Amino acid sequence: MNTVELIRKKRNGIALSKNEIQFLIGSYLKNKIPDYQFSALLMAVYFRGMNETEQSALTDTMINSGKIVDLKKIKGMKVDKHSTGGVGDKTSMIIAPIAAAAGVKGPMISGRGLGHTGGTLDKLESIPGFRTDLTLSQFKNILQKCGAVLIGQTKEIAPADKLIYALRDVTATVESIPLITASIMSKKIAEGIDGLVLDVKTGSGAFMSEEKDAIKLADSLIRTAKSFDKKVIAFITDMNQPLGNYIGNWFEIYESIKVLQGEKVKDLLELSLNLSGAMIFLGNKAGSIEEGIEMSLELIQNGKAFDKFVEIVKLQNGNVKYLHNPEIYPKSKFSEKIFAPKSGYLSSINNYDIGMAALELGAGRRTKEDKIEPKAGIIFYPKIGNQIGKGDVIAEVFSDHKTKIEIARNKILDSLTFSNEKIKKQKLIKKIIT
Amino acid sequence: MNTVELIRKKRNGIALSKNEIQFLIGSYLKNKIPDYQFSALLMAVYFRGMNETEQSALTDTMINSGKIVDLKKIKGMKVDKHSTGGVGDKTSMIIAPIAAAAGVKGPMISGRGLGHTGGTLDKLESIPGFRTDLTLSQFKNILQKCGAVLIGQTKEIAPADKLIYALRDVTATVESIPLITASIMSKKIAEGIDGLVLDVKTGSGAFMSEEKDAIKLADSLIRTAKSFDKKVIAFITDMNQPLGNYIGNWFEIYESIKVLQGEKVKDLLELSLNLSGAMIFLGNKAGSIEEGIEMSLELIQNGKAFDKFVEIVKLQNGNVKYLHNPEIYPKSKFSEKIFAPKSGYLSSINNYDIGMAALELGAGRRTKEDKIEPKAGIIFYPKIGNQIGKGDVIAEVFSDHKTKIEIARNKILDSLTFSNEKIKKQKLIKKIIT
Repeated sequence: MNTVELIRKKRNGIALSKNEIQFLIGSYLKNKIPDYQFSALLMAVYFRGMNETEQSALTDTMINSGKIVDLKKIKGMKVDKHSTGGVGDKTSMIIAPIAAAAGVKGPMISGRGLGHTGGTLDKLESIPGFRTDLTLSQFKNILQKCGAVLIGQTKEIAPADKLIYALRDVTATVESIPLITASIMSKKIAEGIDGLVLDVKTGSGAFMSEEKDAIKLADSLIRTAKSFDKKVIAFITDMNQPLGNYIGNWFEIYESIKVLQGEKVKDLLELSLNLSGAMIFLGNKAGSIEEGIEMSLELIQNGKAFDKFVEIVKLQNGNVKYLHNPEIYPKSKFSEKIFAPKSGYLSSINNYDIGMAALELGAGRRTKEDKIEPKAGIIFYPKIGNQIGKGDVIAEVFSDHKTKIEIARNKILDSLTFSNEKIKKQKLIKKIIT
Repeated sequence: MNTVELIRKKRNGIALSKNEIQFLIGSYLKNKIPDYQFSALLMAVYFRGMNETEQSALTDTMINSGKIVDLKKIKGMKVDKHSTGGVGDKTSMIIAPIAAAAGVKGPMISGRGLGHTGGTLDKLESIPGFRTDLTLSQFKNILQKCGAVLIGQTKEIAPADKLIYALRDVTATVESIPLITASIMSKKIAEGIDGLVLDVKTGSGAFMSEEKDAIKLADSLIRTAKSFDKKVIAFITDMNQPLGNYIGNWFEIYESIKVLQGEKVKDLLELSLNLSGAMIFLGNKAGSIEEGIEMSLELIQNGKAFDKFVEIVKLQNGNVKYLHNPEIYPKSKFSEKIFAPKSGYLSSINNYDIGMAALELGAGRRTKEDKIEPKAGIIFYPKIGNQIGKGDVIAEVFSDHKTKIEIARNKILDSLTFSNEKIKKQKLIKKIIT
């Protein structure tokens, strides 16, 4: 096969065959197609999209570029959740223990934060001792033992994705629905799951700011999951404001502990219950999402969910004393309260900037090499629609670097708009697609 | 400036500024932008196009990547011709001497054949001794002395074009009007010309098979030439059949000699007269194209055009005895007549395949490294619309490799369709755009 002719074919809007896609990915992995041809192909895919057959073939080829984890010996349904990322999104820490406590296995492979969004791995590693770099056999053992495990992507899983993602990142070809779909689904399917709950975010703090784009992505993910016979439910959820009130790595573990201990953090609890409810439903432990939600609530109330979280952390080498006594966790050297500059109803938040303010404080990374400050972050109190008086505390910021405090304060204040009129509250769950 | 952000900007359909284009080309030339980013950018340009400002900025940046030849000391208007390439297109050899004999200076920088199209340099080099690799000072001297010179692209002229073209060739980004425009115009303008005649081919033997695409390209070339204050005329001409009857390097020199000596090769003569007429008009030696055509005819009839050709060939080290006695040129080892398989009117020719048949015989190159057989080629007799009897000689093929004869014969026969109905003759010059 001739690489230039295949690029031209895709460029001209003609679908590639499965053989052609296998040839392209296989040759690229073997260094037989240079980066400059593959990036031209990726840009052609960006413009032309992919039909269902191409999408399945691409995903399949990426799955088979590595190992498919065999979880058949572990009893029960294996269900994971994937979120497209946002600000303050800490649901993994809450729903993995809930679903495991309900008897659904949660083999979770998560990522690191980059840019304005946090990453589950970074959050978990803020718990002293917590290990996310487990081998596949340790991964299986812990899943077997306690029903949930949270690790990072291993070299064995979908290596083609890692290689292609690195190229997309530097060639402006990240924002392509077929490429995003293949990237997400190849990793998830290679993980050995039976079902997947998707949380596709939309709004100013999400990668897909427009709801219609989020729905398109969700549709593509669902179609692809189904073509691999995986059970799937997608939630389209709001990311126009932080989820919960805490942003930052340890801060998000802290808030997760509070929710697992029964604290009613309204939006965070609502989304977590829906996602765990869907996981329990897909895992055949409930007859509907609603029943799954009821079970989830009960597992929080009877303490089983929190106990499960402690068990997971212990098995992954984390120091659980910080879960039982979170107040002993080290504090940032500097902190400051931020006050409302005027009265009114909070009408909008540039949530991307809130994420970037957290990054400035030390909670995030600009490049993969940046180091994270686990205890840095923001407590952000109001929600869109809340009535605020001038001088009210809107947020608190925490960092070991004094200069960063001011930068973050300005970013946060600049991100807010106020209105004299009453504002309708944001709907958190905009759509459920199955 | 951030390269990824600039690729994303172009990808999203937002015009790049002149500074941004200069940054991109400049950094790429200095190896500061890797091929894989530049190819993604080229593909984004393929899909998004370029507006007039971007087109001028790109062309200007490519011109200024090298030297602009200073021809001010050479008196008179300097006018070149550029053809987008075709089968049997040998007009350069005919019109350069005519225009020079009329007092218009022709500083011609030509290319080599690749694929189904021939190249002026290869044709000229079929004349034993002929040198096309002159230095810029030799180029100026000959132009000064005899009014025309035909060489290949030098390293000093638009080096960015050479680098970018090589990348386009392997990333399926050749067929982009703004990129083609910048490639052609940067070289032509750097050559030091005052005016340019364009021959944009359309039909089965052209790169732009559709007339509407040829017109689009011509419009873009004209706009860009004018933005650099160059005089310009574009002809949209038919390439659904070979131009003249001879295809192959020496064969085309042979037919050019015949035309310069007054032989009435209808289509070839008509196009040559129009192009040289336009060159003479742009060179201020005639008041209109028509007047230029009359002067051209006269210069053929009085022998001055042929004499000028002999002078050019001599100055470029070619052995002129082959011009005076072309029959002494070595012959191919094998040749074969091809006979019409049936009677009827010749209704269409797949002219690309005729070009490829010539390539098979040894007249062309598949890759830049392929060697050419100067004497190999095709004499192709009929024109579309001609009435042909079964068994008439349609063509003769010539090669040093016997096996190639059969391949070429089959290609030629397969490329023809016949009809029982009378067929309208093809219009050679479809449009003149100024």
